[in-house]
Order: sequence, then structure tokens, then C-alpha cells
Amino acid sequence: MKKTPSPGNSISIRMRYPNEIGKLSEVTSAIASAGGSIGAIDVVSSDRTHIVRDIVVDTISEEHAQSVVNAVKSVSNIEVLDVYDCTFKLHEAGKLDVVSKKPLKDYVDLSMAYTPGVARVCQAIQKDRAAARDYTIRRNTVAVITDGSAVLGLGNIGAVASLPVMEGKAVLFKEFGGVNSFPICVETTDIEVLVQTAISVAATFGGINLEDIAAPRCFEVERRVTEAVDIPVFHDDQHGTATVVGAAFINSVKLTGKNPADMRAVVVGAGAAGCACTRTLMDLGVGDVIVCDRKGAIYDGRGDEVPSKAWLARVTNKENFMGSMKEALRGADLFLGLSGPDLLRGDDMRVMAKDPIIFALSNPVPEVPPEEVADFAAVVATGRSDYPNQINNVLCFPGFFKGLLDSGVRRVTREMVTAAAKAIASTIEPDQLRSDYIIPSAFDENVASRVTRAVMDVAADPNASKTPIYFEF
Amino acid sequence: MKKTPSPGNSISIRMRYPNEIGKLSEVTSAIASAGGSIGAIDVVSSDRTHIVRDIVVDTISEEHAQSVVNAVKSVSNIEVLDVYDCTFKLHEAGKLDVVSKKPLKDYVDLSMAYTPGVARVCQAIQKDRAAARDYTIRRNTVAVITDGSAVLGLGNIGAVASLPVMEGKAVLFKEFGGVNSFPICVETTDIEVLVQTAISVAATFGGINLEDIAAPRCFEVERRVTEAVDIPVFHDDQHGTATVVGAAFINSVKLTGKNPADMRAVVVGAGAAGCACTRTLMDLGVGDVIVCDRKGAIYDGRGDEVPSKAWLARVTNKENFMGSMKEALRGADLFLGLSGPDLLRGDDMRVMAKDPIIFALSNPVPEVPPEEVADFAAVVATGRSDYPNQINNVLCFPGFFKGLLDSGVRRVTREMVTAAAKAIASTIEPDQLRSDYIIPSAFDENVASRVTRAVMDVAADPNASKTPIYFEF
Repeated sequence: MKKTPSPGNSISIRMRYPNEIGKLSEVTSAIASAGGSIGAIDVVSSDRTHIVRDIVVDTISEEHAQSVVNAVKSVSNIEVLDVYDCTFKLHEAGKLDVVSKKPLKDYVDLSMAYTPGVARVCQAIQKDRAAARDYTIRRNTVAVITDGSAVLGLGNIGAVASLPVMEGKAVLFKEFGGVNSFPICVETTDIEVLVQTAISVAATFGGINLEDIAAPRCFEVERRVTEAVDIPVFHDDQHGTATVVGAAFINSVKLTGKNPADMRAVVVGAGAAGCACTRTLMDLGVGDVIVCDRKGAIYDGRGDEVPSKAWLARVTNKENFMGSMKEALRGADLFLGLSGPDLLRGDDMRVMAKDPIIFALSNPVPEVPPEEVADFAAVVATGRSDYPNQINNVLCFPGFFKGLLDSGVRRVTREMVTAAAKAIASTIEPDQLRSDYIIPSAFDENVASRVTRAVMDVAADPNASKTPIYFEF
Repeated sequence: MKKTPSPGNSISIRMRYPNEIGKLSEVTSAIASAGGSIGAIDVVSSDRTHIVRDIVVDTISEEHAQSVVNAVKSVSNIEVLDVYDCTFKLHEAGKLDVVSKKPLKDYVDLSMAYTPGVARVCQAIQKDRAAARDYTIRRNTVAVITDGSAVLGLGNIGAVASLPVMEGKAVLFKEFGGVNSFPICVETTDIEVLVQTAISVAATFGGINLEDIAAPRCFEVERRVTEAVDIPVFHDDQHGTATVVGAAFINSVKLTGKNPADMRAVVVGAGAAGCACTRTLMDLGVGDVIVCDRKGAIYDGRGDEVPSKAWLARVTNKENFMGSMKEALRGADLFLGLSGPDLLRGDDMRVMAKDPIIFALSNPVPEVPPEEVADFAAVVATGRSDYPNQINNVLCFPGFFKGLLDSGVRRVTREMVTAAAKAIASTIEPDQLRSDYIIPSAFDENVASRVTRAVMDVAADPNASKTPIYFEF
């Protein structure tokens, strides 16, 4: 697929050149010829003879960035003073600050925030543990816990290398949900240590967001930690993805007029997200799902021993279809890719039912090039921000946790996931719904508050089923 | 000792009364008669007939606060609308916020702080672990780790109840040192779990501050965690206290003209702070130290099996003095109380050498009432903010950790402690030094930066000894 310059690969070039009319356009056209996409252009300083500018350029890769710089250098009389990578610059010294909510200006403040006053607050909590919710950060703080074993599409990069992602997650929690969170990157390959650490640190937090933990261990970690702590536990890669996929599904169904009960979905990828999305699609009424892994369709009798795959074999694939992924697509109504790049060509998908719904969520490179299915698919969604219909977990987890924290509920339920999916879907009014707008923008201000409300409503409803969110395969 | 109203026990009383001259003074004199100390007085609203005011009153205890409220209610035509405890109010929903350093305003920011840009930062760290110091919060973030086993003077109150103190610590780290920190309250009574958890979470942090962990387990925890992680570990109750006591000692010596080598100190309390302070006093040249616990002086041959006490028996008490604490005081030059309230009367201490130095640090109630030693002691210091010469760890740990983080050093050394003690002492110029001003205020802006500089100088000096800070008994 064609690569697009991204702000994730932007550089800032500081250059000095003679202050004469037409020179800037020489520079910008050199950048354009090299395939760079220009963002902000600033004046740093200028005098009668020379001007110093910073130009931000989105590129495709670090190599491409270098060729853009070379293109600028080739313009006559241009002096390149400095080049930096905007993403690395943004990450310098990390992305999070931990600050005091109230200023500490004198010893009166000190006497209340710390000794001697703080002792009375400690004693109140010692007497009644529930008071921690009133007087500590437990009220509104989430642990983002990972072992770095399945980070983005990068695989098992370990705890320290995963930290920029976990910090980013904390940024999103705050910016979109008003929820405080903090990364706990656990340096271990031992599931016992990971479980024990999550349990051990729970005293500080009001909720635990498990993040980027590889399947199948993520299922065991989620279940065991949930059983041991007094706060809600949520594995975002499973349930966050399932919530947003559910929302996209709900709106796609509205748009195509298909009846979920008559639909057959093909889910490619049987990991954390695959299991959770399959379950949510069934909770939303999809008639049948065939889940495929590298070996093809998962079916009863294939001999899968991994509990999650054995579960999938049991509850999906009603007809016990035994073929390949490509064969499974024949007549399918929904394709959900949670797998890897470039698995399929557009033509492979023409065998699907009329008006197929295609969610190709492998990131950054989807399972199928969106351009190749555009002419026959009813809806196409990806995980990318530069295509329409981005399936982005940030639509779910900030508001979802805000709802958990505000309701003070101890357990996450499946009913909360479907309610949150409906809430996200409902932020697009019926008259706005279009094939390239089935899912709201991450910056839609209504999303988080609606998700929060949905979660709180389920938490507060004494008649709602309260099915545990974690899998008990 | 006389109890003084403290802002740590302040209440805010909202009251409504007829808007007439003289009424406020009726109210304030009722509060004064009840022993309340009045702080801010605000007008909430007023009209021709009535006025609503908030009056903040420092009290001695919650019972005393109630009697102050009753005194206000007894004034004619006063209606008390609301009363709240200022300390509890300040603690509502906790004291910390975790915020993004940079705003996240659009998808350009999102592409850099999160996917896809963040992946390149992760990969850079995966390739070179040291890059985490450049591009993550490891650069400037400290874990405040506790098991809640020895919190303030409250004892073993557990992890959740300790959280307000740990949050307070994080507030102080930020406000005084510009250091980010985050509480990790470990809910366990098992030393293995505590050690493992500290090791497991280290990937996220640039330093570990162990806090309020009971002796003797604190020594083992510090040593084992230090040996397992790639970042500096510091037990504040030991080394923070030792640093500030060391500073107070240095200035007391300057003031009294005593020669450390000729001095004998009596340290009461053989726990974490007792061991560390004893060692620092010896590092600063004190001739002899006698450490006392509940059973009296610790001496060689007493049969102590706890390793820390066996160590004290070995390295202190040159004359092998075997008597009680009171007997040990005879002729001593320095009393350092790290124990409990009201152990001694002033008269018990008249047996000390001429111009004795008395640091009675039990908090909030010192080992001896400062008023009772005022007429013969050369210097008196306490742990209280409402007496002169407050020995407060906040003079040490924020600047100390800033120095550790900025230098990127992996280990804390004893030389850093003595250097930091000297740096704190030096913030009081010779001509300002007085018996009631041997230690700077917590709000002295020079302290933290000087401590930072001292730590960094030791870290950078290739010729400096680098003696590990933890005890190997």
C-alpha cells in the first residue's frame, strides 16, 4: 500500500538563507519534490540580509526524512542549522508530570498535606478502608500495567522499552477522560511475578488497566488479578478493542440494513482482541463467527489445546467449517482483521456477501489495502488515523474507566462493554451516518462522557446482568 | 507539654449572623476563650441584615474543634451553617494529578505522543536501554515505595492507610525538588513480596525511595533491592533523617565550639533512623556514641541477635557502658532522640556535659519538653514545625534525588550523605547562625539546589570514595 507521510515521522529543520522573495518557495518545492508534507513554518529570526526558519515536515520514515533534509540542503545558499525528530523531541525526559493538586506555599499547607495533619487522614482510612476512596488518589487513579510482551505491533520488547506507550496511555487517560493514571511496567517474563506485582500495587489505585500483555497469558493474568483485588480490572487490548469494534459494527449494521442474526463474520486473529471481539459480536447478535488463525478456521475437533482456542472452537463456527481464511470469506458479511499486514488482496474479498463490512485493523499496515476494497465494500474501517473510520481504543478506555471510578464498582461486566459500544455508536446521529463516518473522532468531546454514563448506568442498575468480563475458558 | 493549636487540626466554620457592628468580635472572642487560634476570615455573602462568613480555626484535636464550634454556637443570634475539617477537605480525592507535559490538541500531537510515532521511540529504547533515560519518565521520576509498616508515629497501619503520607511525599518531591514521584503502596506483610514488587516496578522509575518500612526488615529490603536494580535506592527514614541530623550537628558544633572527636552522643532509638544517624555522626567525626533501646545502652556482649543491634554493639560504645539511658546521659554532649514521646523530664538532662546539644525528634511529642531544657541546653531541635530548629527530611530528599537523577548515578553512597549534610548546614551563613537557627526552613529556596549540587559533585568525582549507603550488617 502507498505510504503516507505522517506526523509520527515529522522532523523540524532549522535553516538560514538570504532574505529574498521567492527563496521560501524554492525550499518548499524542494521538500515537496522529495515527497515531504509541510506542516508549521516559523520565523526564528530575520534581519535585512538573512532569515532563519523552522520548517516541520511529515515524512514516511527516518530514511525518507534524511532525503528531505538532503533536498533542502541542495537548494542554493541554504544553510541547514539543525534538524530534529519531532517525536523524539516530544518524548524528551518523558511525557508525564506528577503534580500537587493544591499549591504548597507555607507551613500551614505543609501541616495539612503532610505532618502532622495527614496522620488523622491515615487513621481514618485505617479505621475504614473505604475512606481511601474519599481521601486518596484511589478515587481517580488507574494503574496501566504491562510486561511489555505485546506492544503495538512490535511484539515482546520488554518493560522498559514499552514505557513510552504506557506514558502515552496515561496522557490519553487524562486528556480524554480526566482520569489520572500511571504506568507500571513490570520487568519479568514470569506470569507469577506479573500477577503478584499487579496485586501488590493495587492499594494505590482505583482501577487496573492491563495493557499489551501477550495472549494467552493475558487471560490468566486478568482473571487472577481480578479475583485478588478490590478494584476493577480491564484488559484494554481485549475489551477496549471489543467495545470500539462493537460500536463500529452497530453503526455499520444501521447503514447496511443487515440483520445481525443473519450475518456471518470472519475474524482473523485468535489472540486477546480476537477472543474479546468475537464474544462482543455474538453479544450484539451476530449469527455466526468463524475465527481464523495461521492454520485457518478454528473448528471443533481441530485439536486446539490452548484454552482460548478450545473455547473459540466450542462457541463459534456453527457449521464446523474447516477451510482456509480465504475460503471462509466466501459469503461472509463482516471481515474483522486483528492480525498482521497485507494478508489479503482486495480481489480475495470479492467472494464476500453483497455490501460486505471490512474492518482491517492491523496497524500501521492493514490486512488488506483499503483502496482495493473501496469499490465493493459497504464500510471500510482501519486502525489508522489517516483513513476514515479509525477504530481507536481511545474512544473507550478513558470514559470507561471514568465510569468505573465514579460508580465505585468493583468489577467490570460484559454488559458494560455492550452498553459502551452502543454509547459510542450513538454519538453519530442517524442523519450524519455515512460509510466513511461510522465511528466518531477521537477528539469528539461527547464520546467519553457518554461512555462514562453508559458504564455507570449498568453499574447502578440492580436488574442488569453482571457477567464478569474476564474469560474463564 | 502544652499542646498548641495546629493547622493540621484546623476547621472552617461557616456562620450567618446579623450584620451589626461588634458581632464579629463576639464570635472571635468566643473562639479565643475556647482556645482556638483564628486563621483566615472570609466574607461569603452579605446583605443589609445578615452576613455569612467562613472562619478558619486551628485547634488541638478533633474534640477541641468540637468545643470551639460549640463556643461559636453559644453566641447569640449565630447560626452555624457548616463546619468542615480543612485537612480532610484538602485530601478529598487525593493530592496528586498525573498530567501530560504537553497539550494534546489534535491528531498531529496524538501521532507523536502515541501511535504511530511512539513506536520509533520504543524501538530506540529496545535497541539501547540507556535511551530510556533520554525519552521516558525514568529521567526524573522516583517510586515512593512502602508497605505501611512504620508510618509516621502511627506504626503498622498497612498500605492503603499509608497512601496519604506517600502522596504527601510525592507533593514534597515535586514542590521542593522538581522531581516527579509516585506512591507504590505494597499490600503485604511478606518481605519477599515487598522486595519482589520493588524490583518489578523499577523499570518505570529513575530512583526508588523506600519509605516508612519498619526496622529491621528495612535494611534487608534496601540491600536486596539495590543489588537487583539499575537505579539508585534510598531509604528516607534512615538516610534522609541522617542527612538532616548531620546538618544540624554540623551547625551545633560550629555554635558551641565543641570538637566532634571529644564529643560523646547518646542516641535513643535503635531502629532505622537510629542506625543511620549513628553512622553519620561517626562519619562526621563524633568521638563516641552510645545507642539506647528500651533495655538501655547497647553494648558488646549484651547478646543482641538482631543484626543491626549486633552491629551497633560492635561499632559504638567504646567504653562498653552498660547502664540505663538516663545514666548514659551523664557527661554526654549530644542527645539524639529518635524514639517516643515524653521519655525524659528536663531535669534528667542536667547531668549532661556543659552546653549540651539536644535533638528530641519524636513527633509530634518530643522525648523531652523543649521548654524544660531551654535554660541549660546550648541548642534544642525537634521534629515540629512550631518550634525553632525543625529537623525535617524535606530538607534532604527532594534535592538529594534530584542530584541522583541529574547525575544518572546508579548507587547512593555514604559520601553523598555527608556532603548533603554539609550543604544543608552551609545554607545558614556564619553570621546568621544562632541557637534557635541552626537548620534552614523547609521553604528556604537555596536548600534543595545546594543538596543537588553536593550529590552531583560526589557522583562526578572520580577520586571520591563510593561507599554503599545500605548496611551490610
